[in-house]
Amino acid sequence: MNALQTVETMLDASCCLPSEQPGISLEDAQQRALVFKALADPNRLRLLSIVKAGESGEACVCDLTEPLDLGQPTVSHHLKILVEAGLLNREKRGTWAYYSLVPGALDRVTGLLASL
Amino acid sequence: MNALQTVETMLDASCCLPSEQPGISLEDAQQRALVFKALADPNRLRLLSIVKAGESGEACVCDLTEPLDLGQPTVSHHLKILVEAGLLNREKRGTWAYYSLVPGALDRVTGLLASL
Repeated sequence: MNALQTVETMLDASCCLPSEQPGISLEDAQQRALVFKALADPNRLRLLSIVKAGESGEACVCDLTEPLDLGQPTVSHHLKILVEAGLLNREKRGTWAYYSLVPGALDRVTGLLASL
Repeated sequence: MNALQTVETMLDASCCLPSEQPGISLEDAQQRALVFKALADPNRLRLLSIVKAGESGEACVCDLTEPLDLGQPTVSHHLKILVEAGLLNREKRGTWAYYSLVPGALDRVTGLLASL
């Protein structure tokens, strides 16, 4: 389960329990922080932006190294963090992996802010 | 100028210039990442949540240490990062500092996601 799914499952389960503490719980905050950590890097923000701007709605990892001026292992590392956060989908086709935005993912991040 | 103000000033200035690269620029991404870095910590998310939940719309630093079970220097360190990001306002009154959400700040973070 990726970070966005985990935090949403947790919010569903805890929605109706009274809390002794003001604000969100430590466990909830830890899960939300994982999603914001994925966004807290300039290269990952640029990767999301390039994938989002792609006409086909997806981008091959082979087309992401040049605009960022980074090596493929570094780009793959950043892409993996975005996938684990629940922001990008990864699909392997032949030699290459193709990445697309998870539908609604950015709106769900907005929800994590709005429900603080 | 705080991080949110800096990125918005930069976006205003660059809105109409054609870009040679797909996606957002490295400089733009670096500024946005500063805002998400401020959100990428469980204690800072809890602080935002407690300040937001306060009936008066603000919280004294003296009331923020106990719910987080952290010492005041640590809490003050996290609050400073949130102020520098443009998410919290700080007002010193007498002995204590009082913190409130910058009006519209969370909506502006949403804008940073939507305009990737």
